[in-house]
Formats: sequence, structure tokens, C-alpha cells
Amino acid sequence: MSYDEITYEVSDGIATITLNRPARLNAFTLEMAHELVAAFDEVDADDSVRVVVVTGAGRGFCAGADLERGAGTFDKNAIGDVKGFGEIDGVPRDAGGAVALRIAACKKVVIGAFNGPAVGVGVTMSLPMDIRIASENAKFGFVFARRGILLEAASSWFLPRVVGISQAMEWVATGRVFDAAEARAGGLVSRVVPPDELIPAATAIAREVADNTSAVSVAVSRQLLWGMLGSPTPWDAHRADSSVLLQLGAGKDAMEGVMAFLEKRAPDFPGRVSTDYPDGVPPFPGTP
Amino acid sequence: MSYDEITYEVSDGIATITLNRPARLNAFTLEMAHELVAAFDEVDADDSVRVVVVTGAGRGFCAGADLERGAGTFDKNAIGDVKGFGEIDGVPRDAGGAVALRIAACKKVVIGAFNGPAVGVGVTMSLPMDIRIASENAKFGFVFARRGILLEAASSWFLPRVVGISQAMEWVATGRVFDAAEARAGGLVSRVVPPDELIPAATAIAREVADNTSAVSVAVSRQLLWGMLGSPTPWDAHRADSSVLLQLGAGKDAMEGVMAFLEKRAPDFPGRVSTDYPDGVPPFPGTP
Amino acid sequence: MSYDEITYEVSDGIATITLNRPARLNAFTLEMAHELVAAFDEVDADDSVRVVVVTGAGRGFCAGADLERGAGTFDKNAIGDVKGFGEIDGVPRDAGGAVALRIAACKKVVIGAFNGPAVGVGVTMSLPMDIRIASENAKFGFVFARRGILLEAASSWFLPRVVGISQAMEWVATGRVFDAAEARAGGLVSRVVPPDELIPAATAIAREVADNTSAVSVAVSRQLLWGMLGSPTPWDAHRADSSVLLQLGAGKDAMEGVMAFLEKRAPDFPGRVSTDYPDGVPPFPGTP
Repeated sequence: MSYDEITYEVSDGIATITLNRPARLNAFTLEMAHELVAAFDEVDADDSVRVVVVTGAGRGFCAGADLERGAGTFDKNAIGDVKGFGEIDGVPRDAGGAVALRIAACKKVVIGAFNGPAVGVGVTMSLPMDIRIASENAKFGFVFARRGILLEAASSWFLPRVVGISQAMEWVATGRVFDAAEARAGGLVSRVVPPDELIPAATAIAREVADNTSAVSVAVSRQLLWGMLGSPTPWDAHRADSSVLLQLGAGKDAMEGVMAFLEKRAPDFPGRVSTDYPDGVPPFPGTP
Repeated sequence: MSYDEITYEVSDGIATITLNRPARLNAFTLEMAHELVAAFDEVDADDSVRVVVVTGAGRGFCAGADLERGAGTFDKNAIGDVKGFGEIDGVPRDAGGAVALRIAACKKVVIGAFNGPAVGVGVTMSLPMDIRIASENAKFGFVFARRGILLEAASSWFLPRVVGISQAMEWVATGRVFDAAEARAGGLVSRVVPPDELIPAATAIAREVADNTSAVSVAVSRQLLWGMLGSPTPWDAHRADSSVLLQLGAGKDAMEGVMAFLEKRAPDFPGRVSTDYPDGVPPFPGTP
Repeated sequence: MSYDEITYEVSDGIATITLNRPARLNAFTLEMAHELVAAFDEVDADDSVRVVVVTGAGRGFCAGADLERGAGTFDKNAIGDVKGFGEIDGVPRDAGGAVALRIAACKKVVIGAFNGPAVGVGVTMSLPMDIRIASENAKFGFVFARRGILLEAASSWFLPRVVGISQAMEWVATGRVFDAAEARAGGLVSRVVPPDELIPAATAIAREVADNTSAVSVAVSRQLLWGMLGSPTPWDAHRADSSVLLQLGAGKDAMEGVMAFLEKRAPDFPGRVSTDYPDGVPPFPGTP
């Protein structure tokens, strides 16, 4: 598949998706949204991909919606019937939400590596990623209230679950742009590193996953952890655990995992997400 | 409207509600509960109010339920049929909960400024506020188990969502009174300042909201963020986003917000909550 | 009752449950699971027990599932039809989940005191405990993906609620073993102390509860706080509060609590969980 506004590369189990409109600080467009969804489809279809790293080309991560259309940027002719993500409740789906929900449903670990400013949809689309780390050059802003619109990309659901309701409200109500240190203190990113250490740091986490874990185990765990955020009771988790543990416990990855541990060697898991994903894992709650 | 146990003032977009029984450390009464609900009704009815600051007169914020009636303080004759907030499931509604749920439904940003001790309902009623900051003189206590009653004001729902379940359980199970530093470390307040910097700090946050953001955007965002805490799925947020973004994106605040940004000037949003609030924003979940 | 793989002692209101297979770092077995469930039944049946402290004998807390059966450890013959915890949705219940859900439903405060490594089910079963503290010697690992299985003990529900979704995903996806300092920074434990201060620290928290609070208040508060994690709306808490406050407010513990406060003396609460537990407290959501 070829892309115009992102790049997509796979190397040694790690897919790197780079937002690639550097002249516009990688501002978000409908084309970029469609390419991101396609790239995550590629990720899920490729058993060799274990981890995804998302970053930006040039100085920015993503400057938010491209305002090149001026005052009409958020008008329905731009964001509405031409979005191409289908409808929900009779209205065109928000493009940022289409990307965020696609990322949430991904079966691989997703790491956001913020190399520079991430504003508006540039940061909200990252909330369903599993791990976010930042360069000292990164800045963030949930600036929607300063533009007269509202936080999107389903971030009213994701943001309080990632940073807590109080921090979420302060960032959203003020709409202020804040630096990487404030993002770290508030729980939006887990680590801040010098600019030239960003990709190495993301790669190190990715390698820790790719070199040591079962792809099937990680895919199931990701679905369960995100999905159970929406469940009213731990008995739903218990129900899924009991069924899935029975299947995975008798599987080839469990045998390899235990033997590798007992023999004090690195594991070499034979399982593949495409063929060995167990039954009974609840999908992301509410998926139509 | 005139009040006896609180004061209510509006200045330049900021409403200040002051608990005002300083001789009793602003201990909570049924009269105070009714006045607080009325004040928040006034806040929501007044488009000129963008932010609410709640604080206490004198040395305390709120010492909790007034124990002047002694051993019978929490008896049904005091808290029961004379409460005047109607019934729920056939019993009189808890007055602290009536206040907390009214604050939760407010369409303006609410900042708690703890000038001194906040104990029992004095702290639980603040949990649905968006931002809490404290003077170094503040103290806090979820002291219910030391009085033989239970945490109220719907705080069993709010507290774990604000500070996490482990911190919530430790404070509630011990019932201990703790200082501002522990409140900050545990996520109950976001900032601790010297006493004479408390109101300036609250005002600075309030101004950051009032001077830069669309009132309609903030009202919608507040409803969505708090409301989605109760939703099982981000698809509910996506559904609301898609509908509301379509409306706000074509609105006058979006045009002003984008133009102000492009022209590098402060925005002057024309939208009003009373007339421009969009359709399709889910109300606080479970509201009867 | 007598136990083989744990010890159970009650002293001055505090029950201490010690995982007791020190030669195997207290690795988890089916027998241990059954004994833990029985011990928590004993806790709930004994009004003299106010707080439970769970710790491990020897150098470890719990090394996870005992891998002595090698590659077949997680096979259904081991974890399946011989588990003895009944079925859920037609499959045998996960033993770790049976323990975790029993702890979640306990009416007393539960403190985990990690004296050494807690790996796999050794840490996931502790997530429904209220407070976790660690010795500097403790280590932790959600190592499931390194063994080719999945996180269990309903921890996909509990873990993100205890430490947040991002920290949960990082620990689960990497499967790495981490030290007490990282556990503290990530919110898994609230305190790290030198080894010989661990039990004194746990005891001090337990005494703070046992000496100052009403057993009935704490039992109700624990049920409400954990239970409301699963509720879509604070109105459910308001409903429970209004009913329960009416009962407890007129009760003997409330009279004693208020009088002790006004008389500036330690309270001596007469209420008992077995006889004075109020109506209308929602049970743990989803309990079959």
C-alpha cells in the first residue's frame, strides 16, 4: 500500500507510522485520517508486526486540524458529508474518532513518540495508544474551547481514563498549550527525553515487547485491558479469563513460555495472532 | 436572590460562592445545602458567569455537618423527612448528594479553593468540582467511619474517580485528617499555595478560562467529560462528538475561534450557553 | 480451621494471612487458592476481625503459579476441571479470579504487605486489596505475556482502575519484572519501607482503622467504593447513600461517634457487622 501523508515502514517486528506533512507541522487532514486507518489495518493483518510506533516528520508531531480553510475549517462541508467514514446516528462520523477507535481496536501495542507539538486532534487521537513518551521539544494542547468547538476523537471518554477527571478538566477548560514536563506530571506521557533519544527510547520499549512476549498473549491482554475499562463488573473479566486461560493454557505459546523460563533462555513463541487468537475475548465494548 | 449562610458575588465573569458561617467553621446545614443549590441555579441561568470559585469565610472551608445537635445529628429527624430535596426510592434524598449532583450538572467550570479545614461533607461535596487547590492551612478528612456513618454526597462514586480506588480506600477506611501536602500527593488537590495566594491562584485559573475560551465549548466539554465517566464505551463519545461537532463546527464561535487564532489576537466569542447550546449532548448519566 | 499452605492468626482485631510455602517462594497452588477463600470466609464471619494483613513467609510474597509441572502447568488438566471453584459460562472458574473476587467482596479492610517478589497471580490477586505497601526487597511482574498466557484473576478489570490504563498496558505488554520503587511511582503500592519496617507499617495502618472507626461504617464504605467503580452514574451512589445514611444516622454507632468527638475521647463503637449491617448497600456489581 502506498501513502501520501504518512509513511509506513516495518523493521524487525516494529512498524513505524510517521505523520508526514512537515511543512504544515503534520496538520491533520481527511486524507491523513484515511491513511492512518489503512495503516492500522495493515498492522493488524501482518503477523510480523508486534509493536507500532507513531511519530511525526520534522519539527512537529501533529498541529491539529489544518486551518488552511480559515473560518470554515470545522464547517460541515469540510468535516461533514465528505468525511467518508460512514454515519453514526444519521450524521457523518467524526474523522478523529474514526482514527482513535481504530487505534483502540488494534491488536498490537501502540507507542506514541511525540517529537514536537501535538495539538487538538494531534493529541486526542493518541489517547487510545498504550504508551506515550515525549521529546523535551514536545508541546500539547487540548485547545478546542479556544477554537469554539469541542474535544473530539472520543477523547471525552479516553482522556479522563488516561489522566483522571480533574487533570482532564483543567486542560480542556483552559485550552492552554503546555510543555512536556507538565504532560509528564499530569500523566499524559510516561517519560520525557532529549530529542535525539526519543526514537531510541520508543524502540527500546518496543523491543522489550517484541523480544520477550507472545504476540497472542499481548493481543488478548490489550483487548481485555481496554475493553474492561467499559465493564461494570470484574465478573466480566473473570468470565473471559476463565474461558481464554483454558485455551491459551493448553496452547503452544504457554508450553514454550514455561519451558523457556525453566531453561533460562529467551522464548521463541510459535503462535500467530491471525491463526491462534482464542475465542471468547470480548471486543471493544459498544463496537457497532 | 439573597442568602444567609453563603455569599454570592459575580465579578468580570467569575462567580464567587463563599460558605459563610465562620463562627462554626462554615459547618454544613440544610439551609446551606439549599442555598448552594440555588446559587448553582443562578450560575447556570446567568450567561455572564463563566467560572465559579467556591471558598470559605474565615479560618475554615467547611467543618462538615454541624454537630450542634449532638448525638442525634445524623438521626432521620435531622437529615430525613425535613431535608426538602424530595425522595429517591422512597426515602428523603441525602442533602450533601443533592448539592454534589447539582454541582456535577453545572455548565460552568467550578474551582474549589480550600482556605482551611474541609471535613466530611465539606470535602465530599467538592469532588464534582473540576479543579481543587488548597492553602497550606487546609486540612481534609473523610471522617465518616469515625462518626459511625458512611461517606455521602455520592462520594463513593466520585472519590475513586478523582483520586483512584487505593487512595480513596485508605482515606475512607482510616477516617484520618490529613494536611494539604498529603492531599496534593494523593491527587485530591492539584496545587498548594500560601494562604494569601489562594484566591489569586484560583482567579488566575478562572481568568485563563474566561478570557480565552468559548462558553458553549466549555459547557459542552464539561458535560461530556463528566458524563462519559459513566459510559461503557467510547462509541458513546464518538456518537456525541459527531453530532455536536457538526453543529459547533458551523457555528459562530468556531468561526471566531479560528479567525482569532489565524489573526493572532484574543477571541471574542459571541455564543451564549442559554441560546447556543447544541443538541445531542448526553446529560449526566442516570439523572432522573 | 486448619491450613496447610497459609497460616491464619488473629490478634487484637488484625487477622494476618501468611502465604506459607517458603521453599517455593510461596508459589500459588489450587490448595492455596482454596485456603485463601476459606480464610476470607473466616474473616467475614468473625466480628472481632477489623483488618486483614496478607504477607508471605520467607524471602518471597508469591512467585506466581507453581511451575513444577513444567510445560503443562497451565493446561486444562491442571487449571481446568479439577479447580473446584465451580463453572462460569460452562467452563471451570479461574482459581486466581476466585480468590480475587472473594477478596473484593470482603467486608473488612485488606492490606497487602509485599515482603518479597510478587509475580503473576502473586500480584494480580492483590489488586482488590485496599492498600498495598512494599519492602525494598519486593519485586513485581505481570509476566503473563512472557509465559504465553494472559493476565488473570480478573486483573484486566482491576489493574487499570488501580494504576491507570497506560501504566497497566506498559507493565502487561512488556511483562517485565520491576522493583518496589517503580511500583511506587506507578501507583501499585503506596509506600516502600526497609524490610524490617514492613509489618510494623502494615500494623500501624491496621491499628489506625481498628482503633478509630466503626466496623459497620467501614464495611459499608468498602462495598460502596469498590462497587461504585462499576456503576454508570453517581445517582446510584446517591440512592444507596440516602437509604443507608437514614439507617446508620439513627444507629448506635452514629450516636457513639458524635459523642466521642464532642467529648474529645476515643470512640467505642457497639455495632457489629454480623448484626448491624444496613439494608440497601449494593453488592459487588455482577456477582452471580
